[in-house]
Amino acid sequence: MYFSSELDGLRVVLVAARNPLNIGAAARAMSNFGFSQLRLVNPYEVAFREARSAVGASELMARAVEHENIAEAVADCTLVVGTTAVRHRELQQPLGRLEVGARLIRSHLASGGVALLFGSEKVGLSNRDLSHCHWLLRIPTCEANISMNLGQAVAVCLYELVRDPMAVEKATLTEPAAAGGVERITTCLLEALRASQYIKPRTTLATEDKVRRLVRRLRLSPSDAELVLGMLRQVLWKLRGAAKP
Amino acid sequence: MYFSSELDGLRVVLVAARNPLNIGAAARAMSNFGFSQLRLVNPYEVAFREARSAVGASELMARAVEHENIAEAVADCTLVVGTTAVRHRELQQPLGRLEVGARLIRSHLASGGVALLFGSEKVGLSNRDLSHCHWLLRIPTCEANISMNLGQAVAVCLYELVRDPMAVEKATLTEPAAAGGVERITTCLLEALRASQYIKPRTTLATEDKVRRLVRRLRLSPSDAELVLGMLRQVLWKLRGAAKP
Repeated sequence: MYFSSELDGLRVVLVAARNPLNIGAAARAMSNFGFSQLRLVNPYEVAFREARSAVGASELMARAVEHENIAEAVADCTLVVGTTAVRHRELQQPLGRLEVGARLIRSHLASGGVALLFGSEKVGLSNRDLSHCHWLLRIPTCEANISMNLGQAVAVCLYELVRDPMAVEKATLTEPAAAGGVERITTCLLEALRASQYIKPRTTLATEDKVRRLVRRLRLSPSDAELVLGMLRQVLWKLRGAAKP
Repeated sequence: MYFSSELDGLRVVLVAARNPLNIGAAARAMSNFGFSQLRLVNPYEVAFREARSAVGASELMARAVEHENIAEAVADCTLVVGTTAVRHRELQQPLGRLEVGARLIRSHLASGGVALLFGSEKVGLSNRDLSHCHWLLRIPTCEANISMNLGQAVAVCLYELVRDPMAVEKATLTEPAAAGGVERITTCLLEALRASQYIKPRTTLATEDKVRRLVRRLRLSPSDAELVLGMLRQVLWKLRGAAKP
């Protein structure tokens, strides 16, 4: 649904990240979701490139670019978005939920570069950092614990950017068996239940309905329906054979 | 939008998790998104409860329940869902994308308990583990790197469960200034440009239009529009004063 060249337009900018493991985790999430441009502003540890948490993202880490300040890191972007957990700080920019911000970022990526800024684990982005941003987004966390781990925050933001809003409409998670096959199972099961004297030979309609509803609740797939029918037929054949002297 | 009692119906079940830091990260994400029921099946390290990655989730970690096997861990759930990165293994259950699976889980949480299973960092959930599940979900990762970090995978799944699909419709991220204010800025700017002889006193309509479009592209907020107008008026007052001998 999204072109990889468009995803390359997103620059994930980690500002003053302290823990190399988090930098590696951010890189891994980028690789998981198809992003490639990682930029670091003043990382605390020089050896961040060796972070073993960057599973499957070593190339991305090798290509990560270091910058001395935010202005330099976002210079080629036409949209700069900051992430923040804070709701009550006197924010100077518009603040939106991730669901909304991601939609705006996606439409911007079709035409130009976007920088998505994440602050340090300890203090997030400062007001000075945020002044580089056109607007801010926040992940919809609970008031009780608003602050996310850096690697997890990056993963959630990137997921929202690539999630497919049409997936729900397109989905056919379970493909149940056709009604005809389900009814054959019902009939066969009823016969087996009668033959085994679980129910009386002349059952009431209410009992039949109960069994019919049960079979439908199973929501069998076509292949499972065939399997169950085969089992029931075999059981029934045995039951009838055993009934004869 | 979601009741906390409903979110309590979700049991996050980590099966054979190896790294206590990942267990702590999972707990932190649960706390971030309002979930509380953590269950562990055979964690590798007994001291997982001390994981310092569980920032803001120490109570949740203290209440986490250990189980010897999956059957015991999911016994009180009416829906059991497994997570898997694998697409090509001969899966015995229906497999859906997270976007779809989360919707089904949400509607199930309104009436009953749901177990969401995550496998170990190294091998994920085995076919034996998956046999406890009604169906499976996968996070839509790239073919190039399908395997996510455990803590990040938990965060992404829980985010999808609480994300608000209506947020986009409800959002008014930027509230631009009304056209009247923007036009006042345009007029004032044109006068200032004329007064400063940046443009000729009798400008063409084309030039005026250019300036008008420029001002609109700024998409000023109401308060910023007021600010800019104040600045321009001051500048214009000075310009006019300076023009007089």
